[in-house]
Amino acid sequence: MQLKKCCDDNFTAHLRRVYISSEFTDAPSYFVKRFNLFLSGKTAGESKSDMQTENEEEEDASVEEYVALTNYTGSGSDQLSFSSGDTLLVHSKPSSEWWWAELKGDIGYVPASYLRQDAAAAAAEEEEEEDEDPWQDEEYFGSYGKLRLHLEMLSDKSRTEAYRQVILSNSASLRNKVVIDLGCGTGIISLFCAQLAQPSEVFAVEASSMAEYTRQLVKQNGCEAVVTVLQGRAEEIELPERVDVLVSEWMGNCLLFEFMVESVLVARDRWLKEGGVMWPSSATLTLVPCQANSYYAEKMAFWEQPYGLDFTPLQPLAQQEFFTKPKFSHLIEPDDCLTTPCDVLCLDMYTLQVKDLEEIKGQFHFCLEKSGVFHGFTAWFTVHFESLETGGATVELNTGPNSEPTHWKQTLFMLDRPVSVFAGDSISGNILLRRNSVWRRHMTVTLHWSINSSTEETDTTQVGTKSFPMWR
Amino acid sequence: MQLKKCCDDNFTAHLRRVYISSEFTDAPSYFVKRFNLFLSGKTAGESKSDMQTENEEEEDASVEEYVALTNYTGSGSDQLSFSSGDTLLVHSKPSSEWWWAELKGDIGYVPASYLRQDAAAAAAEEEEEEDEDPWQDEEYFGSYGKLRLHLEMLSDKSRTEAYRQVILSNSASLRNKVVIDLGCGTGIISLFCAQLAQPSEVFAVEASSMAEYTRQLVKQNGCEAVVTVLQGRAEEIELPERVDVLVSEWMGNCLLFEFMVESVLVARDRWLKEGGVMWPSSATLTLVPCQANSYYAEKMAFWEQPYGLDFTPLQPLAQQEFFTKPKFSHLIEPDDCLTTPCDVLCLDMYTLQVKDLEEIKGQFHFCLEKSGVFHGFTAWFTVHFESLETGGATVELNTGPNSEPTHWKQTLFMLDRPVSVFAGDSISGNILLRRNSVWRRHMTVTLHWSINSSTEETDTTQVGTKSFPMWR
Repeated sequence: MQLKKCCDDNFTAHLRRVYISSEFTDAPSYFVKRFNLFLSGKTAGESKSDMQTENEEEEDASVEEYVALTNYTGSGSDQLSFSSGDTLLVHSKPSSEWWWAELKGDIGYVPASYLRQDAAAAAAEEEEEEDEDPWQDEEYFGSYGKLRLHLEMLSDKSRTEAYRQVILSNSASLRNKVVIDLGCGTGIISLFCAQLAQPSEVFAVEASSMAEYTRQLVKQNGCEAVVTVLQGRAEEIELPERVDVLVSEWMGNCLLFEFMVESVLVARDRWLKEGGVMWPSSATLTLVPCQANSYYAEKMAFWEQPYGLDFTPLQPLAQQEFFTKPKFSHLIEPDDCLTTPCDVLCLDMYTLQVKDLEEIKGQFHFCLEKSGVFHGFTAWFTVHFESLETGGATVELNTGPNSEPTHWKQTLFMLDRPVSVFAGDSISGNILLRRNSVWRRHMTVTLHWSINSSTEETDTTQVGTKSFPMWR
Repeated sequence: MQLKKCCDDNFTAHLRRVYISSEFTDAPSYFVKRFNLFLSGKTAGESKSDMQTENEEEEDASVEEYVALTNYTGSGSDQLSFSSGDTLLVHSKPSSEWWWAELKGDIGYVPASYLRQDAAAAAAEEEEEEDEDPWQDEEYFGSYGKLRLHLEMLSDKSRTEAYRQVILSNSASLRNKVVIDLGCGTGIISLFCAQLAQPSEVFAVEASSMAEYTRQLVKQNGCEAVVTVLQGRAEEIELPERVDVLVSEWMGNCLLFEFMVESVLVARDRWLKEGGVMWPSSATLTLVPCQANSYYAEKMAFWEQPYGLDFTPLQPLAQQEFFTKPKFSHLIEPDDCLTTPCDVLCLDMYTLQVKDLEEIKGQFHFCLEKSGVFHGFTAWFTVHFESLETGGATVELNTGPNSEPTHWKQTLFMLDRPVSVFAGDSISGNILLRRNSVWRRHMTVTLHWSINSSTEETDTTQVGTKSFPMWR
C-alpha cells in the first residue's frame, strides 16, 4: 500500500486553506475525532462499546434535535445512515466534524455537516452556546501564516494581474488618496499601490503571522514611507483616519465561502469615507447546467466492471463520498455547458449588509441549447472594480470557463443521478446559499430545479432538490 | 480570498492516507494543535502568553532532551528556529505534531518531526511511555474505510494489472493452494485468484471497515465458496490452517513508508507454510541524482521578482516549507536524471526481519552522464513476484520514470541549494532510512553525498547531508 500525497504542485495549487479541504475532509476529521477521544482521556485501544456506553449515559443531559439536510449512507458499523428530513437526536459532539446521534433507536456517528438544527430547538439552545470559536479563526489565520497559500494566490496571474490592472488604470486618481488593503497577505496589492501610484498612505492589514514578513517585504521594496503594515483583524484594528479606497481580495469558492466578505463589510462601515470606493465594487455568481462525463466515469461508472468484476455494491458509497459535497476546483470545458450561463446573484459591495449574508437566494431559467447528459450545475463568480474617475473603464475578474483559469477554478454540484436532456428542454429553479448558523465560515448551497421536456408528446416535468454542505 | 480545495481528481489521485499528507501537513496539524488546546480546556481566545506561562510552570516535571535532525526556521512569533544538531529541551507535547520547547533560553513551538530523541535520555524515558498509539492505527485504518483510497489504488492500472498478471501467469500452480491476501482492501486480488485460478481457499484479511463491503463484493461476484473475508489486523487474525501463498500490496512511498511491511512479515512468520511463496518476493529501492527545474522555479525562484517586486525575504520560508520534507508524487522526466539510476536497497521478503526495518542503509556511486543542475535525488521502488513454478517468469512492478506512471509516482528529495555539475563528475554517498522510534509508521531518510569534480584543475569535493522526515 502507499501513502498520502495529495496535491500535485505542478497542476493544482488550489488549497488556500486545508483544514476543511473538500477532498481531504474525511481523514483529517477522522484524525481529529480520534485525537479528541484520546485527549479526552480515552486511549486509542478503548473499544467503541465503551464509548457508546459513556455517551448513552450522558444522553438525557444534553440531547439536541437536528434535521438531516440530505441523505447519508454511513460507512462502517459506527456510523448512522439517514435520509433527508430525518430528525436526529444528537447526544454528544466529540469533534466538530463527527457527532454521536440517535435515529429510530439506532445510535452512531454522523457527519455534523449534514445536519441543520431544528428551528424550535435552536432558539432554546442559543443560551448555552459553546466555547468553541465559531469562526475557527485559529485555523483560518494559522493557514495564512504559511507560504503555500500565498504562493498559490500570487502565482494566479489572472487574479493578481487584475488587481495590478486596477491600480495601474487608476494611478492618477490614487494620488494622495488613503487606501486600506484588507487581508493583504504578503502585501502585493499595497506594493502595487506604492509602486504604480502615489497614494498618501496605504494601510496593509493582515491578521495572520504572515504580517511579520509583509513588513520585511515592504522594507525590501523601499515602500515603508507609504505602506504601513498592521497585524490584526479587520474588526479590531484602529486607523488614524478614514480611507478613500478599500481594496481586498476576499472571494472564496462559490464567491462567499469562508465569509471573509463579512470582515470587508465591517471594515467598510468602520473606515471608509463617505463617497469612498470599494474594490471590488460588485460581485456576481453565475450558474450553468452541465455535463461532467469524465468526473462521473472516474468516480461512479468505474465501479461497473473494473477488471471484469462487478463492483456496483460500492456505488452508493461512491455517490456519498464524491457527489454529496460540491467538487471544488472543477475545470469545466466550455463545451460541457448545456446552454448559456446565467447570473444568479449580484452583490453590491456598497449596500450589502452583514445580515444579508445569512440567506441569499437566486433564480435561474435555462433553455438548453444542446442535447446531452445533465450531470449537475457548475458555478463561478465575477467581480468588478469601478473606476475612481467618473466614466472610467471598469476592470473585471471573471473566473468562468471562458476566461483564463484561476486558482478558484469552478465549483461543480453533481446531481445524484445523471438525466438525459434535449435541446429545447428548459431547466428552471433557484439556488439558496444559507450561511451556517454555528460555523460562520461555512454555508450550505441548496439547488431546486425542474426540467421541462420539449420532446415528449405530453409535457413532463422532473423536479429535484439537493443540498450541498460547504462544509457544515 | 478563497478556499481550500486540494486535489484535482482528474489529475492527481495520490492520496492514500491523508492525515499526514505531504502538502497538507501544516494546516491540519495546526488545526489539531489548536483543537487540542481547546479540548484541554483552553478557549480559542486565550492568549499565547497564558499558554506559555502554564507550560513554563510545568517545565521541571517532564523536560526531555531532543536533538534537531535538520535546520528549521520558525514561522510566526510562537515558533522556535534551530539548526541541525541543536539540543532542545521539550517541555510539553500539546499535540503529536507541535511541541513546546526551549533553545538557549528562547521558548516556542517546534515541529516534532524535526527532532530525534537524545539517545541517553531515550533509554530512561522508555519506561514512562505515553498512552498514545504509536501506530496511529485509528487514523490509518480509518482512512482505508473510505472509498477514495481504494479508488485510487484500483484506478492505478500498472499496480492492479501487475497483481492480476501474477495470478494469471501462475493460475495452474495456484490450483488447490491456500492463499492469504493481506490488507485486501476491496478484495480485488482475492477476486482475481477466484476468477483466474482455482485455489482451494483465499483468506482476504482487511483491518478497516471496508471489510464489510469486501464481503458484499465477494458475494456479488459469486466467489464466496473460495474467498473468506476476515476483518482484523494481521497480528491478530486466526486462520484454520497455514497458507501456501502470502500476497499483499504493502508498498508505500520510498517503499517502506507506513511500514505495513511489518504486518506482512508478522503474518509470514505466523501463517506461511515452510516453502510457501511471498508475493512480492523481493523489493528494490532505486535512486538517481536529478534536475528539478520546474519545481525549483515554482517554489523558490518565483520569489525573485514576481510582478517586478523583490520577494526574496520569503525564500528561507519557502525552503523550509517546500524543501524540508520529500516531495511525494513527483513525476521525474527520464531526461531530468543526470545519469543511470542505481539500486540502493534490496529486501528479500523471505529473510527480512522486523528488527531489520529500524535502520536500513544503502550506498550509491554515480558518474554523471551529462552536465546540468543537481537539485536533488529522486527515489522509487520495484517489486518482483517469483513464479510458483521453478524457472517460471518473474513478474515485476516498476514505479520508476521509465515505466507507466503509478499512483506512487516518485519521491523527490531536494537539496537546500542547487549545485551545477558536469558530465564526468561523480556523486557518491549513502542513504539511511531510520524508522521513527515512537511513531512506528514514520521514518527519516538521511542522504549523505559528496560531489567530486572532474573539470577543476585541482580535485575539489563538495559534501552534504540532509535529513528528510517522513513525517516524524
